[in-house]
Amino acid sequence: MSRVVADITISLDGFVTGPDAGPEAGLGRGGERLHAWVASNHEVDRTVLERSTAATGAVVMGRHLFDVVDSPYGWNDERGYGADQAATPPFFVVTSSRPESVRLAATHDFTFVLDGPAAAVELARSAAGERDVYVMGGAQVVRGCLEAGVVDELRLHLSPLVLGSGTSLFEGAGRRLLTQREVLVSPLATHLSYDVGD
Amino acid sequence: MSRVVADITISLDGFVTGPDAGPEAGLGRGGERLHAWVASNHEVDRTVLERSTAATGAVVMGRHLFDVVDSPYGWNDERGYGADQAATPPFFVVTSSRPESVRLAATHDFTFVLDGPAAAVELARSAAGERDVYVMGGAQVVRGCLEAGVVDELRLHLSPLVLGSGTSLFEGAGRRLLTQREVLVSPLATHLSYDVGD
Repeated sequence: MSRVVADITISLDGFVTGPDAGPEAGLGRGGERLHAWVASNHEVDRTVLERSTAATGAVVMGRHLFDVVDSPYGWNDERGYGADQAATPPFFVVTSSRPESVRLAATHDFTFVLDGPAAAVELARSAAGERDVYVMGGAQVVRGCLEAGVVDELRLHLSPLVLGSGTSLFEGAGRRLLTQREVLVSPLATHLSYDVGD
Repeated sequence: MSRVVADITISLDGFVTGPDAGPEAGLGRGGERLHAWVASNHEVDRTVLERSTAATGAVVMGRHLFDVVDSPYGWNDERGYGADQAATPPFFVVTSSRPESVRLAATHDFTFVLDGPAAAVELARSAAGERDVYVMGGAQVVRGCLEAGVVDELRLHLSPLVLGSGTSLFEGAGRRLLTQREVLVSPLATHLSYDVGD
């Protein structure tokens, strides 16, 4: 059955990017190290990525993240969501205005959603069919989806570093009890998954 | 060989107590749930606690935490560090002034250290001999020891909840790369340990 999975990499101090994240600095200073597990050849890291890609029928992302991946420093044939797949899933971008142009338009199917994260998840759910909706961030969209009560599972990839500053995942979040689901461990990350209660 | 181990329980959003922590509210609102693993009968949680207690030769704590454990709502014969042990290790309390009286003085050996966390660790190291120095918190003392470069290992017990507010472990901490050492998993917590670089 289709599930809505919010999936994001965080530092020990809860940041999902380093400082100065944006189209020209990617995931911010220290952000590359944060995501080192994604490029690792360790079996656990590979399994975590491949399972997730195989299960995903549609992706939801925020506008900041879209601007990063669509920038000249962003995704390309070697790097990006599903870069090694025959076909990528449709992407639903939560935004307050459509971009003027989309660099990746030839290879990726982007839909721009102006009605907030819950509306984007709903459209993604229709597109995903029996497969999962994958909410890939950034922090604002993950938080928005959690607050809207549309997330079934939260996956946190916890990297062994303290960033000190950047974009905080839980800044302003309310109290919430979760149920620990599965923990997988590689040298570069602890992959945590939680069932999200109502 | 003796190691200095900073060991503390945190929520997914990096809080080590809920809001309003203090002598009358213990670990703050939500703090009991944060520490649920300590009272669990799960084998992993028991092993984590017992290994740590067996290895510890001396304990360092901050004044806020001391005030909580020494309050009438604090430690007693059934609950507290080493409550089920024949003898407790010596405790070194980082403080700016000595307390007027110590409720636990008959059963626990407290030394009050006025020269900051690194000095407390140094005294504790002498007392611990070949065993470990255990820095049990709170956040301010753990951060102070990390910043002073006197911590060999950081153990984080990650509980499956978001607290929303409280005492933040890493607030104001600087950037730091760690090496993941061991991860143990029970239903109530993910027990993470990291080697701390210089």
